[in-house]
Amino acid sequence: MNFHVLTLFPEMVAAAFGTSITGRAMEKGILGLHTVNIRDFSLRGDGRIDDYPYGGGAGMVMQAEPVMRAWESLREELPGRVRVIYLNPQGRVFDQRMAKELALEEDLVFLCGHYEGIDERVLGEIVTDHVSIGDYVLTGGELPVLVMMDAVARMVPGVLSNQESGQSESFQGGLLEYPQYSRPEDWRGKKVPPVLLSGHHANVDRWRREQSILRTLRNRPELLETAVFDKKDRKYMRALASGQAEDEITPDQAVFLSKLLAIMEKS
Amino acid sequence: MNFHVLTLFPEMVAAAFGTSITGRAMEKGILGLHTVNIRDFSLRGDGRIDDYPYGGGAGMVMQAEPVMRAWESLREELPGRVRVIYLNPQGRVFDQRMAKELALEEDLVFLCGHYEGIDERVLGEIVTDHVSIGDYVLTGGELPVLVMMDAVARMVPGVLSNQESGQSESFQGGLLEYPQYSRPEDWRGKKVPPVLLSGHHANVDRWRREQSILRTLRNRPELLETAVFDKKDRKYMRALASGQAEDEITPDQAVFLSKLLAIMEKS
Repeated sequence: MNFHVLTLFPEMVAAAFGTSITGRAMEKGILGLHTVNIRDFSLRGDGRIDDYPYGGGAGMVMQAEPVMRAWESLREELPGRVRVIYLNPQGRVFDQRMAKELALEEDLVFLCGHYEGIDERVLGEIVTDHVSIGDYVLTGGELPVLVMMDAVARMVPGVLSNQESGQSESFQGGLLEYPQYSRPEDWRGKKVPPVLLSGHHANVDRWRREQSILRTLRNRPELLETAVFDKKDRKYMRALASGQAEDEITPDQAVFLSKLLAIMEKS
Repeated sequence: MNFHVLTLFPEMVAAAFGTSITGRAMEKGILGLHTVNIRDFSLRGDGRIDDYPYGGGAGMVMQAEPVMRAWESLREELPGRVRVIYLNPQGRVFDQRMAKELALEEDLVFLCGHYEGIDERVLGEIVTDHVSIGDYVLTGGELPVLVMMDAVARMVPGVLSNQESGQSESFQGGLLEYPQYSRPEDWRGKKVPPVLLSGHHANVDRWRREQSILRTLRNRPELLETAVFDKKDRKYMRALASGQAEDEITPDQAVFLSKLLAIMEKS
Protein backbone atom coordinates (compact mmCIF):
# COMPACT_ATOMS: atom_id res chain seq x y z
CA MET A 1 0.00 0.00 0.00
CA ASN A 2 1.27 3.48 -0.87
CA PHE A 3 0.71 6.68 1.08
CA HIS A 4 1.12 9.96 -0.79
CA VAL A 5 1.34 13.11 1.31
CA LEU A 6 0.98 16.69 0.05
CA THR A 7 2.71 18.72 2.75
CA LEU A 8 4.85 21.73 3.66
CA PHE A 9 7.02 19.51 5.92
CA PRO A 10 8.00 16.39 3.96
CA GLU A 11 11.06 15.61 6.12
CA MET A 12 8.99 15.56 9.30
CA VAL A 13 6.44 13.19 7.76
CA ALA A 14 9.17 10.88 6.40
CA ALA A 15 11.11 10.81 9.69
CA ALA A 16 8.08 9.94 11.81
CA PHE A 17 6.66 7.37 9.40
CA GLY A 18 10.12 5.79 9.01
CA THR A 19 10.27 4.97 12.75
CA SER A 20 9.33 1.71 14.45
CA ILE A 21 6.74 -0.64 12.95
CA THR A 22 5.78 1.43 9.89
CA GLY A 23 9.50 1.99 9.13
CA ARG A 24 10.10 -1.76 9.25
CA ALA A 25 7.15 -2.36 6.88
CA MET A 26 8.64 0.17 4.42
CA GLU A 27 11.96 -1.70 4.49
CA LYS A 28 10.09 -4.92 3.74
CA GLY A 29 8.35 -3.21 0.81
CA ILE A 30 4.84 -3.67 2.23
CA LEU A 31 4.30 0.08 2.65
CA GLY A 32 5.48 2.96 0.51
CA LEU A 33 5.64 6.64 1.38
CA HIS A 34 5.78 9.40 -1.21
CA THR A 35 5.86 13.00 -0.06
CA VAL A 36 5.24 16.02 -2.29
CA ASN A 37 6.42 19.42 -1.06
CA ILE A 38 3.68 21.94 -1.86
CA ARG A 39 6.29 24.73 -1.69
CA ASP A 40 7.88 23.33 -4.86
CA PHE A 41 4.76 24.60 -6.64
CA SER A 42 4.94 28.16 -5.36
CA LEU A 43 3.75 30.60 -8.03
CA ARG A 44 6.21 33.26 -6.99
CA GLY A 45 9.34 31.15 -7.09
CA ASP A 46 10.13 32.07 -3.47
CA GLY A 47 8.48 29.04 -1.88
CA ARG A 48 5.55 31.06 -0.52
CA ILE A 49 2.21 29.40 -1.09
CA ASP A 50 -0.05 31.50 1.18
CA ASP A 51 -1.79 34.85 0.85
CA TYR A 52 -4.29 37.02 2.74
CA PRO A 53 -7.89 35.82 3.04
CA TYR A 54 -10.53 37.64 0.99
CA GLY A 55 -12.91 39.42 3.33
CA GLY A 56 -10.16 40.09 5.88
CA GLY A 57 -9.43 38.45 9.20
CA ALA A 58 -6.42 37.02 11.01
CA GLY A 59 -3.98 34.61 9.42
CA MET A 60 -3.05 33.46 5.96
CA VAL A 61 -4.70 30.99 3.59
CA MET A 62 -2.95 28.40 1.42
CA GLN A 63 -3.66 29.30 -2.21
CA ALA A 64 -5.53 27.03 -4.58
CA GLU A 65 -3.03 26.86 -7.44
CA PRO A 66 0.10 25.52 -5.67
CA VAL A 67 -2.03 22.84 -3.97
CA MET A 68 -3.66 21.94 -7.30
CA ARG A 69 -0.30 21.70 -9.09
CA ALA A 70 1.16 19.56 -6.30
CA TRP A 71 -1.85 17.25 -6.66
CA GLU A 72 -1.55 17.20 -10.47
CA SER A 73 2.12 16.18 -10.22
CA LEU A 74 0.96 13.17 -8.23
CA ARG A 75 -2.14 12.48 -10.29
CA GLU A 76 -0.11 11.51 -13.34
CA GLU A 77 1.41 8.55 -11.50
CA LEU A 78 -1.83 7.29 -9.96
CA PRO A 79 -4.04 5.24 -12.22
CA GLY A 80 -7.82 5.38 -11.73
CA ARG A 81 -9.79 6.85 -8.92
CA VAL A 82 -7.96 7.54 -5.67
CA ARG A 83 -9.19 8.85 -2.33
CA VAL A 84 -7.81 12.23 -1.26
CA ILE A 85 -8.16 12.82 2.46
CA TYR A 86 -8.17 16.25 4.10
CA LEU A 87 -8.13 16.47 7.88
CA ASN A 88 -10.33 19.10 9.49
CA PRO A 89 -12.89 19.35 12.29
CA GLN A 90 -15.77 19.22 9.78
CA GLY A 91 -14.89 15.72 8.76
CA ARG A 92 -16.33 12.33 9.57
CA VAL A 93 -14.78 11.18 12.86
CA PHE A 94 -11.92 8.74 12.32
CA ASP A 95 -12.26 5.37 14.07
CA GLN A 96 -11.01 1.80 13.84
CA ARG A 97 -13.71 0.86 11.35
CA MET A 98 -12.54 3.58 8.95
CA ALA A 99 -8.92 2.47 9.46
CA LYS A 100 -9.86 -1.05 8.31
CA GLU A 101 -11.83 0.28 5.36
CA LEU A 102 -8.99 2.53 4.17
CA ALA A 103 -6.47 -0.31 4.55
CA LEU A 104 -8.15 -1.98 1.53
CA GLU A 105 -7.00 0.81 -0.84
CA GLU A 106 -3.91 0.49 -3.04
CA ASP A 107 -3.08 4.18 -2.78
CA LEU A 108 -4.19 6.93 -0.41
CA VAL A 109 -3.48 10.64 -0.76
CA PHE A 110 -3.37 12.95 2.27
CA LEU A 111 -3.45 16.74 2.03
CA CYS A 112 -1.96 18.58 5.04
CA GLY A 113 -3.30 22.04 5.78
CA HIS A 114 -1.56 24.91 7.59
CA TYR A 115 -2.27 28.48 8.63
CA GLU A 116 -5.99 29.37 8.50
CA GLY A 117 -6.70 26.59 6.03
CA ILE A 118 -6.74 26.07 2.29
CA ASP A 119 -8.66 27.96 -0.40
CA GLU A 120 -12.11 26.35 -0.52
CA ARG A 121 -12.14 26.09 -4.30
CA VAL A 122 -9.25 23.62 -4.52
CA LEU A 123 -10.67 21.55 -1.66
CA GLY A 124 -13.88 21.23 -3.69
CA GLU A 125 -11.87 20.09 -6.72
CA ILE A 126 -9.66 17.40 -5.23
CA VAL A 127 -10.76 16.24 -1.76
CA THR A 128 -12.91 13.08 -1.62
CA ASP A 129 -12.90 12.52 2.19
CA HIS A 130 -13.06 15.10 4.97
CA VAL A 131 -11.91 13.40 8.17
CA SER A 132 -11.47 14.59 11.77
CA ILE A 133 -9.35 12.77 14.36
CA GLY A 134 -10.92 14.67 17.28
CA ASP A 135 -12.29 17.95 18.66
CA TYR A 136 -9.06 19.85 19.14
CA VAL A 137 -7.10 22.37 17.10
CA LEU A 138 -3.59 21.57 15.81
CA THR A 139 -0.93 23.76 14.21
CA GLY A 140 -0.99 21.72 11.00
CA GLY A 141 -2.21 18.62 9.24
CA GLU A 142 0.98 16.56 9.46
CA LEU A 143 0.46 15.03 12.93
CA PRO A 144 -3.15 13.93 12.40
CA VAL A 145 -2.18 12.54 8.98
CA LEU A 146 0.63 10.54 10.63
CA VAL A 147 -1.87 9.25 13.21
CA MET A 148 -4.24 8.14 10.45
CA MET A 149 -1.49 6.55 8.38
CA ASP A 150 -0.26 4.63 11.42
CA ALA A 151 -3.73 3.30 12.27
CA VAL A 152 -4.41 2.35 8.63
CA ALA A 153 -0.93 0.84 8.09
CA ARG A 154 -1.26 -1.62 10.97
CA MET A 155 -4.43 -3.01 9.37
CA VAL A 156 -2.50 -3.84 6.14
CA PRO A 157 -1.66 -7.57 6.05
CA GLY A 158 2.02 -8.23 6.84
CA VAL A 159 2.70 -4.94 8.62
CA LEU A 160 2.25 -6.45 12.08
CA SER A 161 3.89 -9.73 13.01
CA ASN A 162 1.57 -12.46 14.32
CA GLN A 163 2.75 -11.58 17.80
CA GLU A 164 1.70 -7.99 17.44
CA SER A 165 -1.66 -8.50 15.83
CA GLY A 166 -3.41 -9.58 19.02
CA GLN A 167 -4.03 -6.10 20.32
CA SER A 168 -6.35 -4.86 17.63
CA GLU A 169 -8.48 -7.96 17.92
CA SER A 170 -9.24 -7.33 21.55
CA PHE A 171 -10.06 -3.69 20.88
CA GLN A 172 -12.37 -4.69 18.08
CA GLY A 173 -14.25 -6.98 20.47
CA GLY A 174 -15.83 -3.72 21.60
CA LEU A 175 -14.41 -3.74 25.14
CA LEU A 176 -11.34 -2.09 26.63
CA GLU A 177 -8.13 -4.05 27.24
CA TYR A 178 -7.58 -6.08 30.41
CA PRO A 179 -4.51 -5.16 32.53
CA GLN A 180 -1.15 -6.67 31.57
CA TYR A 181 1.67 -7.86 33.84
CA SER A 182 5.21 -9.04 33.12
CA ARG A 183 8.21 -10.15 35.19
CA PRO A 184 8.91 -10.06 38.09
CA GLU A 185 6.03 -11.60 40.06
CA ASP A 186 6.74 -9.27 42.96
CA TRP A 187 7.66 -5.77 41.84
CA ARG A 188 8.42 -3.37 44.67
CA GLY A 189 5.95 -5.24 46.87
CA LYS A 190 3.19 -5.30 44.25
CA LYS A 191 2.19 -8.78 43.18
CA VAL A 192 0.82 -10.17 39.91
CA PRO A 193 -2.80 -11.39 40.33
CA PRO A 194 -2.42 -15.09 41.33
CA VAL A 195 -4.76 -16.38 38.59
CA LEU A 196 -2.23 -15.29 35.94
CA LEU A 197 0.39 -17.59 37.51
CA SER A 198 -2.00 -20.56 37.84
CA GLY A 199 -1.42 -22.04 34.41
CA HIS A 200 -5.20 -22.62 34.20
CA HIS A 201 -5.97 -21.15 30.79
CA ALA A 202 -9.76 -21.10 31.11
CA ASN A 203 -9.52 -19.24 34.42
CA VAL A 204 -7.01 -16.77 32.95
CA ASP A 205 -9.34 -16.09 30.01
CA ARG A 206 -12.32 -15.67 32.35
CA TRP A 207 -10.43 -13.27 34.61
CA ARG A 208 -9.24 -11.18 31.66
CA ARG A 209 -12.73 -11.06 30.18
CA GLU A 210 -14.17 -9.86 33.49
CA GLN A 211 -11.45 -7.23 33.88
CA SER A 212 -12.28 -5.97 30.37
CA ILE A 213 -15.96 -5.70 31.29
CA LEU A 214 -15.10 -3.95 34.56
CA ARG A 215 -12.78 -1.42 32.92
CA THR A 216 -15.23 -0.69 30.15
CA LEU A 217 -17.97 -0.11 32.73
CA ARG A 218 -15.73 2.24 34.71
CA ASN A 219 -14.28 4.21 31.80
CA ARG A 220 -16.40 3.86 28.66
CA PRO A 221 -19.79 2.45 29.74
CA GLU A 222 -21.42 3.36 26.41
CA LEU A 223 -19.29 0.67 24.72
CA LEU A 224 -21.13 -1.99 26.74
CA GLU A 225 -24.36 -1.15 24.93
CA THR A 226 -23.11 -2.58 21.63
CA ALA A 227 -20.85 -5.40 22.90
CA VAL A 228 -21.94 -9.07 22.80
CA PHE A 229 -22.00 -11.06 26.05
CA ASP A 230 -22.32 -14.77 26.83
CA LYS A 231 -23.99 -16.42 29.85
CA LYS A 232 -20.86 -16.25 32.02
CA ASP A 233 -20.40 -12.56 31.22
CA ARG A 234 -23.96 -11.83 32.26
CA LYS A 235 -23.51 -13.83 35.47
CA TYR A 236 -20.47 -11.71 36.36
CA MET A 237 -22.34 -8.51 35.46
CA ARG A 238 -25.26 -9.49 37.69
CA ALA A 239 -22.84 -10.23 40.55
CA LEU A 240 -21.19 -6.83 39.99
CA ALA A 241 -24.51 -5.00 39.94
CA SER A 242 -25.69 -6.65 43.17
CA GLY A 243 -22.40 -6.13 45.03
CA GLN A 244 -21.62 -9.86 45.15
CA ALA A 245 -18.50 -9.78 42.97
CA GLU A 246 -14.97 -9.27 44.30
CA ASP A 247 -14.62 -6.12 42.23
CA GLU A 248 -16.32 -2.98 43.51
CA ILE A 249 -18.26 -0.46 41.49
CA THR A 250 -20.03 2.78 42.37
CA PRO A 251 -23.81 2.99 42.96
CA ASP A 252 -24.22 4.87 39.64
CA GLN A 253 -22.35 2.13 37.80
CA ALA A 254 -24.56 -0.50 39.47
CA VAL A 255 -27.70 1.31 38.30
CA PHE A 256 -26.36 1.60 34.74
CA LEU A 257 -25.44 -2.09 34.70
CA SER A 258 -28.82 -3.21 36.08
CA LYS A 259 -30.64 -1.28 33.37
CA LEU A 260 -28.39 -2.75 30.70
CA LEU A 261 -28.97 -6.30 32.01
CA ALA A 262 -32.74 -5.72 32.04
CA ILE A 263 -32.67 -4.65 28.38
CA MET A 264 -30.45 -7.61 27.40
CA GLU A 265 -32.72 -10.12 29.13
CA LYS A 266 -35.79 -8.76 27.37
CA SER A 267 -34.34 -9.10 23.89
CA MET B 1 6.20 25.38 29.62
CA ASN B 2 8.19 22.14 29.60
CA PHE B 3 7.18 18.82 28.06
CA HIS B 4 8.93 15.70 29.36
CA VAL B 5 8.48 12.53 27.31
CA LEU B 6 9.32 8.99 28.45
CA THR B 7 9.70 7.10 25.16
CA LEU B 8 11.49 4.38 23.19
CA PHE B 9 11.87 6.80 20.23
CA PRO B 10 13.27 10.10 21.54
CA GLU B 11 14.67 11.20 18.15
CA MET B 12 11.29 10.85 16.47
CA VAL B 13 9.59 12.91 19.17
CA ALA B 14 12.27 15.62 19.05
CA ALA B 15 12.25 15.83 15.24
CA ALA B 16 8.48 16.19 14.98
CA PHE B 17 8.11 18.65 17.87
CA GLY B 18 11.05 20.69 16.52
CA THR B 19 9.19 21.39 13.25
CA SER B 20 7.06 24.42 12.37
CA ILE B 21 5.30 26.44 15.08
CA THR B 22 6.32 24.38 18.10
CA GLY B 23 9.94 24.35 16.88
CA ARG B 24 9.87 28.14 16.61
CA ALA B 25 8.48 28.42 20.15
CA MET B 26 11.34 26.23 21.43
CA GLU B 27 13.88 28.52 19.76
CA LYS B 28 12.22 31.48 21.47
CA GLY B 29 12.44 29.66 24.81
CA ILE B 30 8.67 29.59 25.36
CA LEU B 31 8.52 25.79 25.14
CA GLY B 32 11.01 23.18 26.29
CA LEU B 33 11.21 19.51 25.31
CA HIS B 34 13.02 16.90 27.39
CA THR B 35 13.01 13.30 26.21
CA VAL B 36 14.03 10.30 28.33
CA ASN B 37 14.87 7.06 26.54
CA ILE B 38 13.30 4.22 28.53
CA ARG B 39 15.81 1.80 26.97
CA ASP B 40 18.58 3.50 28.94
CA PHE B 41 17.00 1.90 32.01
CA SER B 42 17.00 -1.66 30.67
CA LEU B 43 17.66 -4.14 33.49
CA ARG B 44 19.59 -6.48 31.24
CA GLY B 45 22.02 -3.98 29.83
CA ASP B 46 20.99 -4.90 26.27
CA GLY B 47 18.37 -2.18 25.86
CA ARG B 48 15.45 -4.61 26.07
CA ILE B 49 12.66 -3.40 28.31
CA ASP B 50 9.88 -5.87 27.43
CA ASP B 51 9.04 -9.42 28.48
CA TYR B 52 6.24 -11.98 28.03
CA PRO B 53 2.87 -11.28 29.65
CA TYR B 54 1.91 -13.37 32.69
CA GLY B 55 -1.04 -15.57 31.81
CA GLY B 56 0.10 -15.93 28.19
CA GLY B 57 -1.19 -14.33 25.03
CA ALA B 58 0.25 -12.58 22.00
CA GLY B 59 2.81 -9.82 22.20
CA MET B 60 5.19 -8.41 24.76
CA VAL B 61 4.64 -6.11 27.72
CA MET B 62 6.87 -3.21 28.81
CA GLN B 63 8.24 -4.07 32.26
CA ALA B 64 7.54 -1.99 35.33
CA GLU B 65 11.09 -1.38 36.55
CA PRO B 66 12.66 0.32 33.49
CA VAL B 67 9.63 2.62 33.20
CA MET B 68 9.81 3.39 36.94
CA ARG B 69 13.53 4.17 36.78
CA ALA B 70 13.08 6.39 33.72
CA TRP B 71 10.38 8.27 35.65
CA GLU B 72 12.55 8.49 38.78
CA SER B 73 15.42 10.00 36.73
CA LEU B 74 13.00 12.74 35.73
CA ARG B 75 11.31 13.08 39.12
CA GLU B 76 14.46 14.43 40.75
CA GLU B 77 14.40 17.49 38.51
CA LEU B 78 10.70 18.24 38.87
CA PRO B 79 9.67 20.03 42.02
CA GLY B 80 6.23 19.40 43.49
CA ARG B 81 3.33 17.54 41.99
CA VAL B 82 3.33 17.01 38.24
CA ARG B 83 0.79 15.43 35.93
CA VAL B 84 1.88 12.24 34.20
CA ILE B 85 -0.23 11.47 31.13
CA TYR B 86 -0.59 8.01 29.60
CA LEU B 87 -2.45 7.67 26.30
CA ASN B 88 -4.77 4.70 25.93
CA PRO B 89 -8.33 4.00 24.81
CA GLN B 90 -9.50 3.80 28.44
CA GLY B 91 -8.75 7.45 29.02
CA ARG B 92 -10.84 10.58 29.16
CA VAL B 93 -11.35 11.80 25.59
CA PHE B 94 -8.98 14.63 24.70
CA ASP B 95 -10.61 17.85 23.48
CA GLN B 96 -9.94 21.56 23.18
CA ARG B 97 -11.11 22.21 26.73
CA MET B 98 -8.51 19.77 28.09
CA ALA B 99 -5.84 21.35 25.88
CA LYS B 100 -6.55 24.74 27.47
CA GLU B 101 -6.56 23.27 30.97
CA LEU B 102 -3.22 21.47 30.48
CA ALA B 103 -1.66 24.62 28.98
CA LEU B 104 -1.79 26.16 32.49
CA GLU B 105 0.77 23.64 33.85
CA GLU B 106 4.49 24.46 34.22
CA ASP B 107 5.56 20.91 33.41
CA LEU B 108 3.79 17.95 31.82
CA VAL B 109 5.09 14.39 31.62
CA PHE B 110 3.97 12.00 28.87
CA LEU B 111 4.53 8.25 28.97
CA CYS B 112 4.55 6.53 25.56
CA GLY B 113 3.51 2.87 25.48
CA HIS B 114 4.45 0.21 22.93
CA TYR B 115 3.81 -3.47 22.25
CA GLU B 116 0.82 -4.86 24.20
CA GLY B 117 1.09 -2.13 26.80
CA ILE B 118 2.89 -1.45 30.08
CA ASP B 119 2.88 -3.50 33.29
CA GLU B 120 -0.21 -2.37 35.18
CA ARG B 121 1.64 -1.96 38.48
CA VAL B 122 3.87 0.88 37.31
CA LEU B 123 0.93 2.64 35.63
CA GLY B 124 -0.82 2.58 39.00
CA GLU B 125 2.27 4.09 40.65
CA ILE B 126 3.03 7.00 38.34
CA VAL B 127 0.17 7.87 35.96
CA THR B 128 -2.16 10.72 37.04
CA ASP B 129 -4.15 11.11 33.78
CA HIS B 130 -5.34 8.44 31.36
CA VAL B 131 -6.23 10.17 28.09
CA SER B 132 -7.51 8.92 24.72
CA ILE B 133 -7.27 10.90 21.48
CA GLY B 134 -9.81 8.70 19.69
CA ASP B 135 -11.21 5.21 19.07
CA TYR B 136 -8.46 3.74 16.94
CA VAL B 137 -5.39 1.61 17.63
CA LEU B 138 -1.88 2.93 16.99
CA THR B 139 1.50 1.20 16.95
CA GLY B 140 2.80 3.33 19.82
CA GLY B 141 2.22 6.30 22.08
CA GLU B 142 4.53 8.78 20.35
CA LEU B 143 2.13 10.09 17.67
CA PRO B 144 -0.84 10.70 19.99
CA VAL B 145 1.53 12.33 22.50
CA LEU B 146 2.80 14.63 19.73
CA VAL B 147 -0.80 15.47 18.83
CA MET B 148 -1.58 16.35 22.45
CA MET B 149 1.60 18.38 22.90
CA ASP B 150 0.83 20.32 19.73
CA ALA B 151 -2.74 21.13 20.80
CA VAL B 152 -1.60 22.11 24.31
CA ALA B 153 1.41 24.11 23.08
CA ARG B 154 -0.65 26.39 20.86
CA MET B 155 -2.73 27.39 23.90
CA VAL B 156 0.42 28.58 25.73
CA PRO B 157 0.67 32.40 25.52
CA GLY B 158 3.29 33.54 23.00
CA VAL B 159 3.44 30.30 21.00
CA LEU B 160 1.10 31.60 18.29
CA SER B 161 1.59 35.03 16.78
CA ASN B 162 -1.43 37.36 16.90
CA GLN B 163 -2.06 36.52 13.27
CA GLU B 164 -2.27 32.83 13.99
CA SER B 165 -4.39 32.92 17.11
CA GLY B 166 -7.65 33.59 15.31
CA GLN B 167 -8.35 30.01 14.36
CA SER B 168 -8.79 28.57 17.82
CA GLU B 169 -11.21 31.32 18.73
CA SER B 170 -13.61 30.45 15.98
CA PHE B 171 -13.43 26.76 16.84
CA GLN B 172 -14.13 27.57 20.45
CA GLY B 173 -17.22 29.49 19.47
CA GLY B 174 -18.74 26.03 19.13
CA LEU B 175 -19.29 26.14 15.37
CA LEU B 176 -17.21 24.88 12.47
CA GLU B 177 -15.03 27.23 10.38
CA TYR B 178 -16.46 29.20 7.47
CA PRO B 179 -14.79 28.63 4.06
CA GLN B 180 -11.64 30.63 3.24
CA TYR B 181 -10.56 32.11 -0.09
CA SER B 182 -7.35 33.77 -1.23
CA ARG B 183 -5.99 35.21 -4.46
CA PRO B 184 -6.83 35.10 -7.34
CA GLU B 185 -10.51 36.17 -7.52
CA ASP B 186 -11.06 33.85 -10.45
CA TRP B 187 -9.24 30.54 -10.10
CA ARG B 188 -9.67 28.18 -13.02
CA GLY B 189 -13.16 29.61 -13.60
CA LYS B 190 -14.16 29.38 -9.94
CA LYS B 191 -14.97 32.73 -8.36
CA VAL B 192 -14.67 34.04 -4.83
CA PRO B 193 -18.14 34.74 -3.31
CA PRO B 194 -18.82 38.42 -4.19
CA VAL B 195 -19.60 39.47 -0.61
CA LEU B 196 -15.96 38.83 0.35
CA LEU B 197 -14.83 41.42 -2.23
CA SER B 198 -17.43 44.01 -1.20
CA GLY B 199 -15.40 45.68 1.53
CA HIS B 200 -18.58 45.77 3.63
CA HIS B 201 -17.32 44.32 6.91
CA ALA B 202 -20.70 43.74 8.53
CA ASN B 203 -21.93 41.81 5.50
CA VAL B 204 -18.72 39.76 5.41
CA ASP B 205 -19.11 38.89 9.09
CA ARG B 206 -22.77 38.01 8.57
CA TRP B 207 -21.99 35.77 5.56
CA ARG B 208 -19.20 33.99 7.43
CA ARG B 209 -21.39 33.44 10.46
CA GLU B 210 -24.14 31.93 8.30
CA GLN B 211 -21.67 29.69 6.49
CA SER B 212 -20.42 28.45 9.87
CA ILE B 213 -23.98 27.65 10.95
CA LEU B 214 -24.68 25.92 7.62
CA ARG B 215 -21.52 23.79 7.75
CA THR B 216 -22.11 22.83 11.35
CA LEU B 217 -25.67 21.80 10.50
CA ARG B 218 -24.44 19.71 7.58
CA ASN B 219 -21.46 18.06 9.25
CA ARG B 220 -21.72 18.23 13.04
CA PRO B 221 -25.35 19.12 13.89
CA GLU B 222 -24.93 18.12 17.55
CA LEU B 223 -22.63 21.13 18.04
CA LEU B 224 -25.57 23.45 17.34
CA GLU B 225 -27.29 22.23 20.50
CA THR B 226 -24.75 23.93 22.76
CA ALA B 227 -23.86 26.98 20.64
CA VAL B 228 -25.21 30.47 21.41
CA PHE B 229 -27.18 32.33 18.72
CA ASP B 230 -28.35 35.92 18.36
CA LYS B 231 -31.51 37.21 16.68
CA LYS B 232 -29.97 37.41 13.21
CA ASP B 233 -28.64 33.84 13.51
CA ARG B 234 -32.11 32.61 14.39
CA LYS B 235 -33.64 34.51 11.48
CA TYR B 236 -31.21 32.80 9.09
CA MET B 237 -31.91 29.43 10.69
CA ARG B 238 -35.66 29.94 10.28
CA ALA B 239 -35.15 30.86 6.62
CA LEU B 240 -33.00 27.74 6.13
CA ALA B 241 -35.55 25.49 7.81
CA SER B 242 -38.42 26.84 5.68
CA GLY B 243 -36.48 26.71 2.40
CA GLN B 244 -36.39 30.50 2.03
CA ALA B 245 -32.63 30.92 2.32
CA GLU B 246 -30.23 30.84 -0.63
CA ASP B 247 -28.46 27.84 0.85
CA GLU B 248 -30.11 24.46 0.49
CA ILE B 249 -30.40 21.78 3.12
CA THR B 250 -31.92 18.30 3.15
CA PRO B 251 -35.42 17.58 4.54
CA ASP B 252 -33.82 15.78 7.53
CA GLN B 253 -31.67 18.80 8.28
CA ALA B 254 -34.74 21.05 8.05
CA VAL B 255 -36.59 18.87 10.58
CA PHE B 256 -33.59 18.90 12.95
CA LEU B 257 -33.29 22.68 12.66
CA SER B 258 -37.01 23.27 13.24
CA LYS B 259 -36.94 21.20 16.42
CA LEU B 260 -33.85 23.07 17.64
CA LEU B 261 -35.50 26.45 16.94
CA ALA B 262 -38.65 25.37 18.80
CA ILE B 263 -36.57 24.45 21.86
CA MET B 264 -34.60 27.72 21.71
CA GLU B 265 -37.74 29.81 21.46
CA LYS B 266 -39.28 28.12 24.47
CA SER B 267 -36.30 28.75 26.75
